[in-house]
Amino acid sequence: MSHETAPGARLAALACPLPVEGDRVTLAHGAGAGASARLFEERVHAHLANPALDRRHDGALLDLGPGRVAISTDTFVVDPPEFPGGDLGSLAVHGTVNDLAMCGASPRALTCGLVLEEGLPLAALDRIVASLGRAARTVGVPVVTGDTKVVERGKGDGVFINTTGVGVAPPGRDVGPHRVRPGDVLLLSGPIAEHGVAVLSVREGIGLEGELASDSAPLHELVSGLFAAVRDVHCLRDPTRGGVGAAVCEIASTSGTRIVLDESAIPVREPVRAACELLGLDPLFLACEGRCLVFVPEAEAEAALHALAARPEGRGAARVGRVEAGAGRVVLETAIGGSRVLVLPPGEPLPRIC
Amino acid sequence: MSHETAPGARLAALACPLPVEGDRVTLAHGAGAGASARLFEERVHAHLANPALDRRHDGALLDLGPGRVAISTDTFVVDPPEFPGGDLGSLAVHGTVNDLAMCGASPRALTCGLVLEEGLPLAALDRIVASLGRAARTVGVPVVTGDTKVVERGKGDGVFINTTGVGVAPPGRDVGPHRVRPGDVLLLSGPIAEHGVAVLSVREGIGLEGELASDSAPLHELVSGLFAAVRDVHCLRDPTRGGVGAAVCEIASTSGTRIVLDESAIPVREPVRAACELLGLDPLFLACEGRCLVFVPEAEAEAALHALAARPEGRGAARVGRVEAGAGRVVLETAIGGSRVLVLPPGEPLPRIC
Repeated sequence: MSHETAPGARLAALACPLPVEGDRVTLAHGAGAGASARLFEERVHAHLANPALDRRHDGALLDLGPGRVAISTDTFVVDPPEFPGGDLGSLAVHGTVNDLAMCGASPRALTCGLVLEEGLPLAALDRIVASLGRAARTVGVPVVTGDTKVVERGKGDGVFINTTGVGVAPPGRDVGPHRVRPGDVLLLSGPIAEHGVAVLSVREGIGLEGELASDSAPLHELVSGLFAAVRDVHCLRDPTRGGVGAAVCEIASTSGTRIVLDESAIPVREPVRAACELLGLDPLFLACEGRCLVFVPEAEAEAALHALAARPEGRGAARVGRVEAGAGRVVLETAIGGSRVLVLPPGEPLPRIC
Repeated sequence: MSHETAPGARLAALACPLPVEGDRVTLAHGAGAGASARLFEERVHAHLANPALDRRHDGALLDLGPGRVAISTDTFVVDPPEFPGGDLGSLAVHGTVNDLAMCGASPRALTCGLVLEEGLPLAALDRIVASLGRAARTVGVPVVTGDTKVVERGKGDGVFINTTGVGVAPPGRDVGPHRVRPGDVLLLSGPIAEHGVAVLSVREGIGLEGELASDSAPLHELVSGLFAAVRDVHCLRDPTRGGVGAAVCEIASTSGTRIVLDESAIPVREPVRAACELLGLDPLFLACEGRCLVFVPEAEAEAALHALAARPEGRGAARVGRVEAGAGRVVLETAIGGSRVLVLPPGEPLPRIC
């Protein structure tokens, strides 16, 4: 971390006396004057300082060099904000870094937009922003600009975090659902449903927390290793909200292909399977936050699988399906040799998983 | 607008039957499956369609060409979401476009992160997203990627919108508080406090709504005209939350200078002044959403003022202050010939103005 000036020094230099405040977020913290400045300096900047953020302007200027610029945005409203294996702050970094990686881009900078609810303990805000800062430093991607708003008690829920990321993709790299075609093989980087089950286990109090943890993790290095090993990756997708099921349905629909999933090949850890049975939920539709789906031509499949499995984030990688000519359908080949069309749950009320 | 495929056609191609739904946002809309897809197609994509968004990937790739990339983020939580002169959707576009312009950058793309409260009428969502789409088309900047989350009733407030923007600044352009120095002249592009007063007049029901309207407007062309006319602009700032007072205090603090404001030179329209008296608020600390502060060397001041006044957004531009050597203070020279140190209101509870 680089501090151009320590927060204390900057506070002393502010043109106005700052209010004495309690230990909770107040509406004054959102009004744009003294209390807002103090909140930013003590609770946000202190955890995220870097040369770009230190400029305290309305935005940041980045020297990204050649290549196309990838951009992705996500607002994180996970409830509860702290769960086994992660929290809202680290999840916000991983989620956006992964979306950039899924575009074939190296992450380069993040923005951070906070919506705080009046009454939020400042200690809770500190924990979450500190975690966000640690995750950003681990990934090596600075938070270059941000925004903080406060809403009245009962008009928000603790903290919501929007992270938007920019990255750079090398010239000519083109990955996305539009490139998925018959003959492609579908790989999955590891066992599924771990984030969704970890969050739900806390929320529903099912008592399996000790064995369950979110898979929340950054995937940019896994993807970078994949591109080093494979000439042509057609599509990448991290199966977050809605899980592998929703991701594959959407890609089948956008690409106008028929995707065949081999149910028995999709890895699910035993405690996760047990929790899903208790909750009455299909792991296929539960969120991952540290896994990716990879569509490659058949000729590249073995090299791609090897590249995934070579890294810790890809332990458990498997070939889980294939792409055929068809019209936007997903077919599940079941363990007992049957097959059925995969149908998205019409409106399973599982909000706020991420 | 470019539709690669009409929403109807895409819905028919989805791999799953979609639920019949009512006229309000439900938790199922946030669960990542069928209802989420339908909400995106019918209520978001329909208003924002463009080739990048049509790809329906987790992010977008942009060919921005040479220059440094500017990035800025803002979450808009204004209450009420519709007010004289604008609404949450157009405000979100103008606010972020303006932050990019204040970095000396031409806006090129926006992201849109929505947080919806369960129970929000879909018609209200439609109006706001349609307004956002219209504002984006008027500015000529597409919404290239987005995200939509739903929170339970009483955990949000209708709609919150995060817009993050990217733009391009020509090589060598360097504007920001760090460049403000003694000898600079401070210009202001037009009358102040109009957004803040318009929002508060509705919220407080002070009955002056007919005469008051937000100044919400994009400033990228005003700034572009300024750079065409003036070789060296030191700093730009749109005085949004906290108004001109907070913006100038922050710049004085960051640049370590003493900024002297000429109170009588700061334009305030008469109905705005009257409303401020009724509300007991100082217009200096009320938000603008279509004005900018401009710091230029004395030698460039006349050319800069002329360039501002030449455009409709700069009608009413005035020279309002100067920069002296000092240590992070703002001094207000009053109309009656006195002077006082400008003190930020410690915690005026005026949240949710933007």
